[in-house]
Amino acid sequence: MAQKTIKVEGMTCGHCKSAVEGALNELDGITSANVDLDADKVDVEYDDQKVTESSMVEAIEDQGYDVK
Amino acid sequence: MAQKTIKVEGMTCGHCKSAVEGALNELDGITSANVDLDADKVDVEYDDQKVTESSMVEAIEDQGYDVK
Repeated sequence: MAQKTIKVEGMTCGHCKSAVEGALNELDGITSANVDLDADKVDVEYDDQKVTESSMVEAIEDQGYDVK
Repeated sequence: MAQKTIKVEGMTCGHCKSAVEGALNELDGITSANVDLDADKVDVEYDDQKVTESSMVEAIEDQGYDVK
């Protein structure tokens, strides 16, 4: 199991939190995704044999947010 | 047809805009609802024979926002 913190720009409210967490949780291999709105970040636990960082970044960007 | 501008606190992003506009449009008698995020308001056109201001306020508050 791997853990990573991804910095994300533009998340402002509970809807944004849900959108980003939901998009990550749809990926196979994600164990947990927790957005911290105040810190502009999402903490992800994942199986690095199943999911790549680039696919996580793409999932976040597809929701309309920028990854720093 | 009546027109009213309702000041709303806490709308921050496109999801918030959609939530408020969607909740208003579900009410019978609403012709249009347009959120202006920068101005913290929603402009509503409605049939005042069908929908009351208090039901519009309630629909907005049910989405988690405060009406000023």
